[in-house]
Amino acid sequence: MGVSRRDFLGMVGLAGGSAAVFQMMTVMGLAAPSTYKQPQLGTGGKGKKVLILGGGLAGMVSAYELNKAGYEVEILEFNDRAGGRVWTIRGGDKYTELGGFEQTCQFDKGLYINPGPWRIPHVHQAYQHYAREFGVKLEVFPMINHNAYVHRKSGVKERQGKLMIDMQGHVSELLAKALSQNALQGEMTGEDKTKVLEALKGWGFLDKDYRYSKSLATSSYRGYDRDPGARLEPGTPSTPLSLDTIVKNDLWADLNTGLAYEFHSTIFEPVGGIDAMARAFEARTRQFIKYRSKVTDIKQDEGGVTATYEDLTTGTTKTARGDYCICTIPLSILSQIPSTGLSPKLTDAIKKVPYGPSFKAGMQYKRRFWEQDEAIYGGVTYTDQSMGLMSYPANNYNSNGKGVVLGAYMFGPDAVKFTGMNPKDRLQEVLKQNIAIHPQAEKEFDNGISVGWHRVPFTLGCYGLYNEETRKDIYPTLCALDKRFILAGEHTSYWNAWQEGALLAGTSAVEIIHEAASKA
Amino acid sequence: MGVSRRDFLGMVGLAGGSAAVFQMMTVMGLAAPSTYKQPQLGTGGKGKKVLILGGGLAGMVSAYELNKAGYEVEILEFNDRAGGRVWTIRGGDKYTELGGFEQTCQFDKGLYINPGPWRIPHVHQAYQHYAREFGVKLEVFPMINHNAYVHRKSGVKERQGKLMIDMQGHVSELLAKALSQNALQGEMTGEDKTKVLEALKGWGFLDKDYRYSKSLATSSYRGYDRDPGARLEPGTPSTPLSLDTIVKNDLWADLNTGLAYEFHSTIFEPVGGIDAMARAFEARTRQFIKYRSKVTDIKQDEGGVTATYEDLTTGTTKTARGDYCICTIPLSILSQIPSTGLSPKLTDAIKKVPYGPSFKAGMQYKRRFWEQDEAIYGGVTYTDQSMGLMSYPANNYNSNGKGVVLGAYMFGPDAVKFTGMNPKDRLQEVLKQNIAIHPQAEKEFDNGISVGWHRVPFTLGCYGLYNEETRKDIYPTLCALDKRFILAGEHTSYWNAWQEGALLAGTSAVEIIHEAASKA
Repeated sequence: MGVSRRDFLGMVGLAGGSAAVFQMMTVMGLAAPSTYKQPQLGTGGKGKKVLILGGGLAGMVSAYELNKAGYEVEILEFNDRAGGRVWTIRGGDKYTELGGFEQTCQFDKGLYINPGPWRIPHVHQAYQHYAREFGVKLEVFPMINHNAYVHRKSGVKERQGKLMIDMQGHVSELLAKALSQNALQGEMTGEDKTKVLEALKGWGFLDKDYRYSKSLATSSYRGYDRDPGARLEPGTPSTPLSLDTIVKNDLWADLNTGLAYEFHSTIFEPVGGIDAMARAFEARTRQFIKYRSKVTDIKQDEGGVTATYEDLTTGTTKTARGDYCICTIPLSILSQIPSTGLSPKLTDAIKKVPYGPSFKAGMQYKRRFWEQDEAIYGGVTYTDQSMGLMSYPANNYNSNGKGVVLGAYMFGPDAVKFTGMNPKDRLQEVLKQNIAIHPQAEKEFDNGISVGWHRVPFTLGCYGLYNEETRKDIYPTLCALDKRFILAGEHTSYWNAWQEGALLAGTSAVEIIHEAASKA
Repeated sequence: MGVSRRDFLGMVGLAGGSAAVFQMMTVMGLAAPSTYKQPQLGTGGKGKKVLILGGGLAGMVSAYELNKAGYEVEILEFNDRAGGRVWTIRGGDKYTELGGFEQTCQFDKGLYINPGPWRIPHVHQAYQHYAREFGVKLEVFPMINHNAYVHRKSGVKERQGKLMIDMQGHVSELLAKALSQNALQGEMTGEDKTKVLEALKGWGFLDKDYRYSKSLATSSYRGYDRDPGARLEPGTPSTPLSLDTIVKNDLWADLNTGLAYEFHSTIFEPVGGIDAMARAFEARTRQFIKYRSKVTDIKQDEGGVTATYEDLTTGTTKTARGDYCICTIPLSILSQIPSTGLSPKLTDAIKKVPYGPSFKAGMQYKRRFWEQDEAIYGGVTYTDQSMGLMSYPANNYNSNGKGVVLGAYMFGPDAVKFTGMNPKDRLQEVLKQNIAIHPQAEKEFDNGISVGWHRVPFTLGCYGLYNEETRKDIYPTLCALDKRFILAGEHTSYWNAWQEGALLAGTSAVEIIHEAASKA
C-alpha cells in the first residue's frame, strides 16, 4: 500500500488543518471505526474440527464463519431451539423456570415479548453487517419518545419532551442570569460571553429578557394547554414545570437514557421479534447443531477437546470432540460443569463472574389505550416504581387490535422480589404498577407472562457482571486462548448483555482459533 | 350528565391536590385536548348540495363528511389527480412547472420524493383519526437522528448527538461553577442549590468535580474514538467539542428542531409516500370529483354559488352550482379568479396573503452510502449551505439498492435562486452542496428532480404566510362564512403548510355549513 490510512491522514492534516482531517476521517470511515471486521480465513480450515458448546449467537456465528473456511464444526445446544437469550415468546409457547413454575403464553397471534435483548443499536456494526447479509428486516424503535412519561410514585407524571425542554430552559435561564450578574468573569472574554448568551437564548428557548416563561413561543416546543387548530384557534400556552418541581422529584433523572451511545437514534428492533437474527443464523447452521444436548464434562488434552453430554431426548450419554473448542456456555452454568485440562487460572476465573438477576413481564392489553388515549407510539415510560419501566409496541401503530407492552423490566433485588411470587401474583403486581401510570390498564388487562433471568435454566442470570477489579484481574484470562479452548459470548466483550458482544466475541474467537490452527 | 368533566376535575382537585388533577386530566384526555372532533351531522344534508372547489385534503374531507350526512357534493379539481400539495413523485411521473420546464422522474421502482408535506406528527389528531379510519399505514420518521450531522460551510461537521451532549455538558458545568462561586444567591436556598447541583451533575454528564470532560463516562454518551469491542477492547474515549467551537460555529442552532412540538417523537411518514392519505380520500370521493376542471369564475347569489370552469380535457366551458360552496383553492390562485357576490372585505382579504417560495430536490443515489459508510438511518442533516437540509430515506433500511434522499429543502430567496436555474443546473448545484457533506455523493449520483412551489401551476407558492398583523386584520374574515361561501385549507388554520390544517379547516367548514344549512 505504501501509505497507510493513518499516515495519509497525517499528510492531510499538515495541508488542510484539523477540519480537513476530521472530514477525511469521516469519509474514510475512521471517525467511529468499527470493532467488527468479517473474518477473512480463506479455506485454511480443511481437515480440522472445532467443537462449539452452546448454540446462541456467539456459537452460531462461530460455526457459520468457520464452516465458510472449510472447518468441520459441531454445536452442542441445551435447548430445543438455537439462540439462547436471543429469545421471543409468542402465543402457545410454554416456559418452565427453575423451581418448576410453568407458564403458557396466551398472547394473540402476531404479538410477542422479547424477554432478553430487544433493541438493535445502529452503532452495533457486527449486528448490522449480518442483518444486511441475511436480510434481517429492521424497524425503528423510538427510544426517545417525547410523549412517553416520567412517572414518580409521588403522583407526578409528565411527558418527557416537556421535561427536556423545561430542563434546558431553566438551566439556560439561570446561567444567563449568572452571566448577566458577571459571574464566571475569569472564564470568558466579553465576546465569548455575547456568543454564549446568544446560544443560551436560542438553545434555552429564552425570551428577549433571557427568561424561560409561559408563552406561545415556549409552547411551540413543549406543547399547549389546547393545541392550535383551524380558523380562530391559535392554541393556548402551557405552563412550564418549575425547576423546583423537576429537581425535587428527580424528573431529570431519566431524560438522558436515550442519549446513551448505544441508544442513539436511529435505533431498531427486528420486524417480528428479536429472534429474527437467531433464526437467520440457525437457518445457516442447523445441520451442525445437536439440540437438547446438556454438556456434563469438558476435557482438554494435547490433541483437542472432548465434551461429554447428555442427549436429553434419548437420555443417553454421548461425547463430541474437536481439535479446538469454542465454549459459549454462560459462566453461571459453565462454572458448574466439571472440566479437566483447562489452566487452573481459567478454571478459577470462570467461577468468579456473578450473573445478575433481571425480570421482565409482557402484558397483553385488549386495546392500545396508550396510542388511542395518550398518543404514545412506542418508546419507554420511566417510573420509580419497582416495575422500572414500561415499553410500548414499536409496530402496528394505530391498529385497533390488542397490544403487548413490556410491563416491567428491572435488575437486582427488585427482580428477585418479583420472582419470589408465583407467576399470577407477579402479573397482579405488575398490573397494579401499570395502573398507577395508565389507569385504563385495569379494565384492559388480558393476560401476561414473566421471565426472571436468574430462574432461566439455561443461563441462571441475565449477563456477566464485571467491575473495575475483575476486568483487570480475571477478565483477560477469560478472553485468552487456553491451548485449544477459548470462551466466547457477551461475557468476553465490553458489550455485555448485547447481541453485539456475542457476535464480536464469536468472530474474534474464530480468528484466534484460526491463527492457532494455522500455526499448528 | 349533572357533573361536567371540568367540574369533576374541580372536585378531584379539592380532594387530591394538583397531582391528582393532573393524573385525572391525562386519563380523561384533557391534558392535551384535540382540536379535532369528527363532524356529527346526522342525516340533515338530504336535498342540499355543496359545491367544493379544489380536490386536496380540505376538499376531499369536506366531501367525505358531507356525503355521509346525505349532502350532494361535487368537487372541481384542476389536476388529473386529487391531493393537491399532498403529492408524491415517482419514476415515470412528468411535471411541467410554470415557465415551461418539464421534468420526467427517473427514479427506480419503489423510490419517490414528497415535494410537499412529508412528515406526520403524532400531535396531528385529525390525521391520526383518518389514518386509523382508512387504515393508512405509518412508519416512524426519525426526526431526531443523533448520528446525522450539523454541517457548516466553514468545514465543521459533527454528529448531532455529540453536539447535544456537549452543549448540555458545557452549560451544566458553567452553571455548576457559577453556583459554586456563590452566584445567584438571591435565587435559591442552600437546599435548592444542593438539588440543582445534583441535577446538573446527572443531567450534564459531570464528573465528581462537576467538570464536563473527556472520559469513558462521557464517551458512553457522546461516543468513542474507537468503540468498545470484544475481549480486550474497552473503547477509547472521544474528546468533547469545546463550548467555544460550538458557539462560534452556531452548532447549537439546529439542535432544537426535533424538539418543536409538531416534531415530537414519535413522528411518522405514511408507508410508500405522503400521498397515501390523498389516495385514501380519493378512493372514497372519486365519484364526486371532476378532474382537470379549472375554475374561471365564482358567483354567489341569494340561493347559492355557481362556479364557471374550463374542462381542460375537452376545452369546453361549464358551470357547477351548489346551495353552498367550500372553496379550498389556494389564495395565491383564488385571488386571480374573478368573483361576484362575495363580501368586499373577503375579496380584499383573499388578495392580501402572500404565499412563500420553497424548493425541494429529490436525489437518487446508486448506493445508500449514508447508511453503509456513516450509519445514518433516516433523519435530517442540517447545513448553512443554501440547500438547507438533507433528509435520508426512513424506510428499507440496510437495503443494498439505490436510495432517494431529499437533497435540498429551503424557503425564501434561496428557493427563488434555485428555480432561476434550469432543472439540470439546479441538480448540479444541489449535488455540489451534497458533496460538501458527503463526498461519496459525487461518485454515487444517479438522477434527480426538483420542485419550486412558487412555480407549481396549481398553487403558485408553498403555503399562506401570516404575521401578527394579518392574523388580526384579515385572517378572521378569511375564516368566516360569507353567506353561502366559506374558505377551507391550511390557510384557514394555525397549522399552516400541514395536512392537519387542511383536515381541520375542512371539517370545521363542514360544521359551519351544516349549521347554516340547518337554520335555512
